[in-house]
Amino acid sequence: MFYHDSKMQYPVRVEKPNPVFARALQQAIGGIEGEIRVCLQYLFQAWNSRGPVKYRDMLMNTGTEEIAHIEMLATAVALNLEGASVSMQEDAAQDPVTNAAMGGQSTRDAIGNQLMRHVLSSGQGAMAADSDGVPFNGSWVIGSGNIAADMYANAMAESTGRLLATRLWEMTDDPGMKDMLSFLIARDTMHQQQWLAVLEDLGTEQLPIPNSFPQELENQEFNYAFLATGIEPQPAPDARWAKGPSLDGKGKFTYVKQAKPQGEKPTLGAPNPKGHAQVDQIMAYDRSKAKK
Amino acid sequence: MFYHDSKMQYPVRVEKPNPVFARALQQAIGGIEGEIRVCLQYLFQAWNSRGPVKYRDMLMNTGTEEIAHIEMLATAVALNLEGASVSMQEDAAQDPVTNAAMGGQSTRDAIGNQLMRHVLSSGQGAMAADSDGVPFNGSWVIGSGNIAADMYANAMAESTGRLLATRLWEMTDDPGMKDMLSFLIARDTMHQQQWLAVLEDLGTEQLPIPNSFPQELENQEFNYAFLATGIEPQPAPDARWAKGPSLDGKGKFTYVKQAKPQGEKPTLGAPNPKGHAQVDQIMAYDRSKAKK
Amino acid sequence: MFYHDSKMQYPVRVEKPNPVFARALQQAIGGIEGEIRVCLQYLFQAWNSRGPVKYRDMLMNTGTEEIAHIEMLATAVALNLEGASVSMQEDAAQDPVTNAAMGGQSTRDAIGNQLMRHVLSSGQGAMAADSDGVPFNGSWVIGSGNIAADMYANAMAESTGRLLATRLWEMTDDPGMKDMLSFLIARDTMHQQQWLAVLEDLGTEQLPIPNSFPQELENQEFNYAFLATGIEPQPAPDARWAKGPSLDGKGKFTYVKQAKPQGEKPTLGAPNPKGHAQVDQIMAYDRSKAKK
Amino acid sequence: MFYHDSKMQYPVRVEKPNPVFARALQQAIGGIEGEIRVCLQYLFQAWNSRGPVKYRDMLMNTGTEEIAHIEMLATAVALNLEGASVSMQEDAAQDPVTNAAMGGQSTRDAIGNQLMRHVLSSGQGAMAADSDGVPFNGSWVIGSGNIAADMYANAMAESTGRLLATRLWEMTDDPGMKDMLSFLIARDTMHQQQWLAVLEDLGTEQLPIPNSFPQELENQEFNYAFLATGIEPQPAPDARWAKGPSLDGKGKFTYVKQAKPQGEKPTLGAPNPKGHAQVDQIMAYDRSKAKK
Amino acid sequence: MFYHDSKMQYPVRVEKPNPVFARALQQAIGGIEGEIRVCLQYLFQAWNSRGPVKYRDMLMNTGTEEIAHIEMLATAVALNLEGASVSMQEDAAQDPVTNAAMGGQSTRDAIGNQLMRHVLSSGQGAMAADSDGVPFNGSWVIGSGNIAADMYANAMAESTGRLLATRLWEMTDDPGMKDMLSFLIARDTMHQQQWLAVLEDLGTEQLPIPNSFPQELENQEFNYAFLATGIEPQPAPDARWAKGPSLDGKGKFTYVKQAKPQGEKPTLGAPNPKGHAQVDQIMAYDRSKAKK
Amino acid sequence: MFYHDSKMQYPVRVEKPNPVFARALQQAIGGIEGEIRVCLQYLFQAWNSRGPVKYRDMLMNTGTEEIAHIEMLATAVALNLEGASVSMQEDAAQDPVTNAAMGGQSTRDAIGNQLMRHVLSSGQGAMAADSDGVPFNGSWVIGSGNIAADMYANAMAESTGRLLATRLWEMTDDPGMKDMLSFLIARDTMHQQQWLAVLEDLGTEQLPIPNSFPQELENQEFNYAFLATGIEPQPAPDARWAKGPSLDGKGKFTYVKQAKPQGEKPTLGAPNPKGHAQVDQIMAYDRSKAKK
Repeated sequence: MFYHDSKMQYPVRVEKPNPVFARALQQAIGGIEGEIRVCLQYLFQAWNSRGPVKYRDMLMNTGTEEIAHIEMLATAVALNLEGASVSMQEDAAQDPVTNAAMGGQSTRDAIGNQLMRHVLSSGQGAMAADSDGVPFNGSWVIGSGNIAADMYANAMAESTGRLLATRLWEMTDDPGMKDMLSFLIARDTMHQQQWLAVLEDLGTEQLPIPNSFPQELENQEFNYAFLATGIEPQPAPDARWAKGPSLDGKGKFTYVKQAKPQGEKPTLGAPNPKGHAQVDQIMAYDRSKAKK
Repeated sequence: MFYHDSKMQYPVRVEKPNPVFARALQQAIGGIEGEIRVCLQYLFQAWNSRGPVKYRDMLMNTGTEEIAHIEMLATAVALNLEGASVSMQEDAAQDPVTNAAMGGQSTRDAIGNQLMRHVLSSGQGAMAADSDGVPFNGSWVIGSGNIAADMYANAMAESTGRLLATRLWEMTDDPGMKDMLSFLIARDTMHQQQWLAVLEDLGTEQLPIPNSFPQELENQEFNYAFLATGIEPQPAPDARWAKGPSLDGKGKFTYVKQAKPQGEKPTLGAPNPKGHAQVDQIMAYDRSKAKK
Repeated sequence: MFYHDSKMQYPVRVEKPNPVFARALQQAIGGIEGEIRVCLQYLFQAWNSRGPVKYRDMLMNTGTEEIAHIEMLATAVALNLEGASVSMQEDAAQDPVTNAAMGGQSTRDAIGNQLMRHVLSSGQGAMAADSDGVPFNGSWVIGSGNIAADMYANAMAESTGRLLATRLWEMTDDPGMKDMLSFLIARDTMHQQQWLAVLEDLGTEQLPIPNSFPQELENQEFNYAFLATGIEPQPAPDARWAKGPSLDGKGKFTYVKQAKPQGEKPTLGAPNPKGHAQVDQIMAYDRSKAKK
Repeated sequence: MFYHDSKMQYPVRVEKPNPVFARALQQAIGGIEGEIRVCLQYLFQAWNSRGPVKYRDMLMNTGTEEIAHIEMLATAVALNLEGASVSMQEDAAQDPVTNAAMGGQSTRDAIGNQLMRHVLSSGQGAMAADSDGVPFNGSWVIGSGNIAADMYANAMAESTGRLLATRLWEMTDDPGMKDMLSFLIARDTMHQQQWLAVLEDLGTEQLPIPNSFPQELENQEFNYAFLATGIEPQPAPDARWAKGPSLDGKGKFTYVKQAKPQGEKPTLGAPNPKGHAQVDQIMAYDRSKAKK
Repeated sequence: MFYHDSKMQYPVRVEKPNPVFARALQQAIGGIEGEIRVCLQYLFQAWNSRGPVKYRDMLMNTGTEEIAHIEMLATAVALNLEGASVSMQEDAAQDPVTNAAMGGQSTRDAIGNQLMRHVLSSGQGAMAADSDGVPFNGSWVIGSGNIAADMYANAMAESTGRLLATRLWEMTDDPGMKDMLSFLIARDTMHQQQWLAVLEDLGTEQLPIPNSFPQELENQEFNYAFLATGIEPQPAPDARWAKGPSLDGKGKFTYVKQAKPQGEKPTLGAPNPKGHAQVDQIMAYDRSKAKK
Repeated sequence: MFYHDSKMQYPVRVEKPNPVFARALQQAIGGIEGEIRVCLQYLFQAWNSRGPVKYRDMLMNTGTEEIAHIEMLATAVALNLEGASVSMQEDAAQDPVTNAAMGGQSTRDAIGNQLMRHVLSSGQGAMAADSDGVPFNGSWVIGSGNIAADMYANAMAESTGRLLATRLWEMTDDPGMKDMLSFLIARDTMHQQQWLAVLEDLGTEQLPIPNSFPQELENQEFNYAFLATGIEPQPAPDARWAKGPSLDGKGKFTYVKQAKPQGEKPTLGAPNPKGHAQVDQIMAYDRSKAKK
């Protein structure tokens, strides 16, 4: 069960509202790198957690924290979309939102256009969409039932998330926004650590994932071989993945300079007559088979 | 540029066609864990690669290999959807596809229904969709411009991909399909190794990602702190992420038993009159402000 | 900011796990009538709330409650997907999940197929998708900036939500599931009341929405007229919307038995030559214009 | 069955073509508040209508009218995208579409970019997408089989629809566009009335929806209780939903100052071994259970 | 503007309701081959039509006809989802919908599960989705502004549409449904003819599309050359596309047995430092460049 | 199986990087007219090919070529997104990407906003999305199992694809980009020819598609009749589709000046009580039926 506090996890201040930056912040709300995704991802992983309780508890803690991050960013969007409340009454012509997006000559202004959805659909508020207006998509919420796979999904989410936050940090010069982002960047640092720490916590032999599939059942010729697919043979580079022991200590990297097919050209059966391929396709098929 | 070989990378044999298994295989083609995703992901990362050429080359090799995996799985779907070509002519009533999905009494059969899309839309062939028929979505193709973030995205893709392949392996008892899957499982083992090896190859200090953002600019109070969000204080668990040095060696884990808000309750400005909130909302807003 | 309690808002018990019912419950999690939608909808409306603080506060309370409903349903899905934990070890052959979906003869079983995604992708857990496996879509999260429009969006969400819950109630005979649903149905009753109560609370003249647009600026001939579009004149039915005072008390319903066009056939300009329509289309256009 | 008239329902005039406004109008065509949605929604509700024929007839009339609204808006988009046809031949450099979007120096112009899709994909015409270019989505078409739930869905559609139309009205100063919008705003006024009138027409006791579920089967403790989820107790506000008789006259509002969990911490079974969780997750699970 | 007739374009009779066939019919409503797509496609092409009026008129006629086809199919879905109305009252246990999908033992029945969405969301009615429940998507509505390209899009839609209808015809043995489908199949025959007839009507030189781009500006070496991409040289097949005059009479087919790259390996610039690639990626980049 | 060559199929040069044009090029990568679609479409058609081997081979050749086109366009996007690598270090203020999108005053610049996704998500690289940022969608990949239907799908793809390429050609004045596009336009010319040549190659009687459905089973009254749906009778136009022999030589066009319904007003059964329509809807239904 969940509770809220009307106060925010960390201060959200905007000194100079910037509607364009509001749009950029949407990526951190509803984009694939954004907070709705991590929030639902950690919570679903917690709710589906089968295994030691401490992992479930940890996921619940952090999943709950992420709701607060959506809240902070949504508030930041709303604040960036407004002018000072006084000037809005007094002088609509000077107000960036009103002026840029609501009418007058500046309707032809590109900024107005870019903010259309925020004006037309959300009334100066945040949306569950990315910075292009593409809606959040539930397919991004990964919960595989395998905790190690999930931890890599989480590490990836926090890596692209922190990367996004640093790019947003570069994009703004508003001190309030920079301060809020410095907090979110710090949280992403911790969360990267946290998910990788789970892998250590689980024990030393997590790879390959899943580690519960008997590895002797996988093909033993190709499980530690790099296959080069160049049209001409490619010499092995001087790189960690091309030679030496594998990272998991269970194999040895080999390098196949030019991959070769092991299989044959496939032969499919004739089309099912009730599936209504073209007559000529079916008949020609028969003839082509006959020739063989 | 690209070339093809009419032969397949590895043999694809189906002894007893199983239309239901064909549907399951679709997850490995068009699902978020599937081969279209990794193929496009590695190729886009290669094409966008800025940095040492050896990473681009490696991504090209493996991205190209993945096209062959889509091919193998698509062929496996087509083969599972067909009866022996002889019996199809001779005895449609015994043919699983015709019988189950094409007509007669068994149109009420659930299997027929489940395979509807394969019969109605693709004519016994594979589709760019998952096992529920949900189309492949380009948002899953991650290429962030940061190689370490991308490697975690790739490790995650291969972890959920190998997990999916082992589950498919459990689901079938067809020797041909088990053989094909043992090859794909082996390749996923290698590819997990490969992406993690890149992180080693890059150098020892990759965390936090991105490592090019000056870490002193992130909030120093919360960057290695676990925040518990329980309504009651939560004692620190005996876990790697709760105490001791951080994984990156740059900090020390602390554990905050009960997170507290640092911010205030937010105050948004009045609705823009031209945004047409309700009159009562605007007026009541004024009154509510006045009361403060 | 948000907090969690490891206990659930209301008991979630499953006496006889039913994997098919798990799939049905997904509609209440990730469908357009489901709990992720209302949760995000109320929270975004709260975060974007411009106007009297009491509405924001109310939205926060209920938005937070809805996270607990997702949690209850996700837990119900996970419980319906498992067999008793003892029998799963002892006798996989009797276990509905293992047997139906994991292997053996029954892989051809339709139920196994239907549950594929839960087995292949989520490992016996809930997903952010509906009962067809279609992912949750952020476009469903309505927050318009106009509180009355939002309340109708919320009333609609709770109406279809309660309808869905009663249908799920009819579908199961598990006492634990029926008890959980009787709670969710009750909450939907309250929430329907609550959103409609806001409209009363705002004041008596909320219609038409938005009520801040000067109604004299809308077309005065057609704002209370029912337009019949039948190819033959349609007599006015004996119905509330066909005559008498309008509901908002601001007009009088009229009934136009056969709507007529007020406009002309449109005339568009020629294609832009640089837009590369067909030559014949452009030239024929000129000729066709010339004929007029 | 359906018929068309080459004339439009209401005049569509554009005095000064404004490509940016064309893009804004797309929201009213292909957005969730737009006309494709209401058109299909009312028609599907009519086609699925089970119950008194007069409701089906009404839905058919208005669903058919909405096709004409899509037509008007699509025509408005096309007209806003064109220059005067003469100047386009004579002086491409002065033509807003050609100049802004087709080439020359102004390819770097933001407006050109914003209109890219209209130039690249639709050749100066309307698309089945919103103002961000996100395609219309069939999930928005609500037809629940319960007429009261459907009427709230319709009231919500017309509320957000009229809100959108008034915002578009503010955005343009073209007299033709303002006139067209004043008609569409008027029709939305009527349609709001109409759907709410159906609820009156059905009879006095429509709430809670569905009213055919025996209300005594829902949980009687929580069906008229407001649950506050604040971390600290929240006093009841002076608001319609916090005390007094419920709107439906069937209960009495109560206010729970601080919601408490009724359920327990959930306990899920072990992962299914064939679902291939991590070994350490499965074993640790056993140990963690053993400790209890 | 549009009008409706309460009668349907062609009789829709269902002798033995078959809920599974209802689900199959959804593909013809909301699938990419379905009627919503062609309806909107022809209407948008008409509304955007720039060129001779006769094409616009034709598109309007057929686009309007297609609304009637959606209506027929939606009605067929609703009828297939119901039992005879008498038996539904008398003996719910015998009713296929109630029995299969609503409760009792048969909730575990696969058919019940497959119809879940129709029961849970639409109350025995049609939806704007395909036979897998995937919603209609507006991106399928093609209107390019080039009439020849549009005619191929339309010919393709009617080809896959007629193919789908014949497959549905094979799937059912209900005389009413077979009769309805024989009508829809006939209309698709006509519409295939119609769109191809437009190409003849336009004049003899429509290829390549667009024919308004000066063909001498396209690369003259590769515009009629078949490029084989096999890893080994491929002899030209005995096929129409491999030799002889091109179909448009403007070139001559050549056959390149083994395609070769004309370009170089690309060299991208360094990552933008403010885009926060990994430090090692940026520095290694410099080193790797330095080596060249 | 597949191989790559590090060299590109055709030179990709950018003289003056233009970030806005990069965005436009995305339509040719991830739009419905774009190269990912044709690449996957031809490859899936090849892999699913049942019929003469020469068609499969041809599809493989061209599907493989299209991967190289994605590569060229992705490279063109990356090159257009970068400044000269020297100036980026030396003078970020002059660099279009840095300046426009990364910070400083110009964050309010519309161009910066438009390129947000390329900066925020892809780090100056191409994405699997269209020019509005809408992700590639697998539903666009058509493979119907009927080769003639597929060839129309392919002809349509190459028609809209060449149209798009000519519009991009008009949009840029960069000699390198114009050269690359002249190559892609030429390839589209060939591919249009190629797919239409398959129809000739198959034999003379391909229409109607599918030609394997016995045409005498389709309704014989309406299979070559144009149905006008105007509210008033429409005289037959002087057009190819309105009279004379049908294109397939199997019928004769007739023109029905005013279409009439052949069917009746539909009558659906009562709502299923367990589907929980409104009581008043169910009862009123009974009353309304009783009246008849």
